[in-house]
Amino acid sequence: MRKVEVCFSPELIHLFDLEDKIVVVVDIFRATSTMVAALANGIESILSFADLEACRLMKEKGFLIGGERNGLTAPGFEMGNSPVAYLSGEYSGRKLAMTTTNGTQAIEKSKGAFEILIGAFPNLQATVSYIQDQNKDVLIHCAGWKGHFNLEDSLYAGALVKSLESTHESSEDGAMAMSLLFEKVGHNLKGFLSQASHAKRLQNHGIEEDIDFCLTLDLYEIVVKLDERGFLVKV
Amino acid sequence: MRKVEVCFSPELIHLFDLEDKIVVVVDIFRATSTMVAALANGIESILSFADLEACRLMKEKGFLIGGERNGLTAPGFEMGNSPVAYLSGEYSGRKLAMTTTNGTQAIEKSKGAFEILIGAFPNLQATVSYIQDQNKDVLIHCAGWKGHFNLEDSLYAGALVKSLESTHESSEDGAMAMSLLFEKVGHNLKGFLSQASHAKRLQNHGIEEDIDFCLTLDLYEIVVKLDERGFLVKV
Repeated sequence: MRKVEVCFSPELIHLFDLEDKIVVVVDIFRATSTMVAALANGIESILSFADLEACRLMKEKGFLIGGERNGLTAPGFEMGNSPVAYLSGEYSGRKLAMTTTNGTQAIEKSKGAFEILIGAFPNLQATVSYIQDQNKDVLIHCAGWKGHFNLEDSLYAGALVKSLESTHESSEDGAMAMSLLFEKVGHNLKGFLSQASHAKRLQNHGIEEDIDFCLTLDLYEIVVKLDERGFLVKV
Repeated sequence: MRKVEVCFSPELIHLFDLEDKIVVVVDIFRATSTMVAALANGIESILSFADLEACRLMKEKGFLIGGERNGLTAPGFEMGNSPVAYLSGEYSGRKLAMTTTNGTQAIEKSKGAFEILIGAFPNLQATVSYIQDQNKDVLIHCAGWKGHFNLEDSLYAGALVKSLESTHESSEDGAMAMSLLFEKVGHNLKGFLSQASHAKRLQNHGIEEDIDFCLTLDLYEIVVKLDERGFLVKV
């Protein structure tokens, strides 16, 4: 049987062997949810940058630029990190360059994997089906919050571990713990996660609508992967 | 209200502010369980060493020496890392020098806290009462396994968070997650944790008796703390 493991922080990713694994990067509030929303609503491709300045420069190359630090739009950027900004389809056909506090750093640190996918609740089931069609072990890489464990990324990990249980064994402790936690609170994800510390931070910025979107299951049938050029694209 | 947080790995401890906090170091299988067992059964005090060679040298100074790496007694050491070895009381009155794969490293990395306690299931309630008598925030520092999250240390953290809920708020995500997980599986700690990866590693070494001891609640009324000389002593 294939295996699934969970890494709770980019600061622990060096402990895991990435080679020949599918790594699913998760930053529920909000980077990976926004990436999925953007690509599902017409954005052609996304380049993700760990560095703010490198991202800003992409505007000159015709990219739409999205930059967020500590939950707020970075100065001089056209887009922040809100998934709902893409839902109207008004940016359809554009390429997006994007940098965020935690999510894009986690993508950077996942390099070396067999394949990097972007995970979010709105395309959970599509991602499950895509993974199950391949004969690979899986590592779920939670972006966390500035290196810290967070509930929303870990619960996505739990949901993914549970959804993969017919094909992927979760004998690793982190995967086992989060699968059980998802069993306990998954029926009330929105109610429960509005108590999480990062959701509280975001509520202070008045973005309840974003939180609601990020916790909605299976809106889209697309899978998001990093292609050989380094672009995030839909499969 | 006071606060309680959980750090899942010594490799994440730099993210937390230790100053003015009570830090509870936890390495259920088996370092901290062994420390509690030793002090409850007559060992006078314990010096904990991160370094194997420094620990070995303490034999010349009349210390009983305990050394473990990867679950096995280190070559040349009198004691391994088994709590049940102390239960007969035959080492009563001795000073112990001890080094283990994960636990003693976590103690080393907790320095700078207001006070460092040693946590284990056999003295959980005594530790809870001691903490509740002081007006301090608490950080539970899980030793993990070579930097990885592990279930037994995290579930102890969950048990401690839950036991402190009348005095300490668990608004931090790690504390919240583990308190809920303990609610789900705490009624069957031994059955559940025998599935954890480190328990399986230990079972391969034939030490089911140790595992059983480490998961037994409230055998002792002692609290174990690091004193100003750097010795672990009972309070």
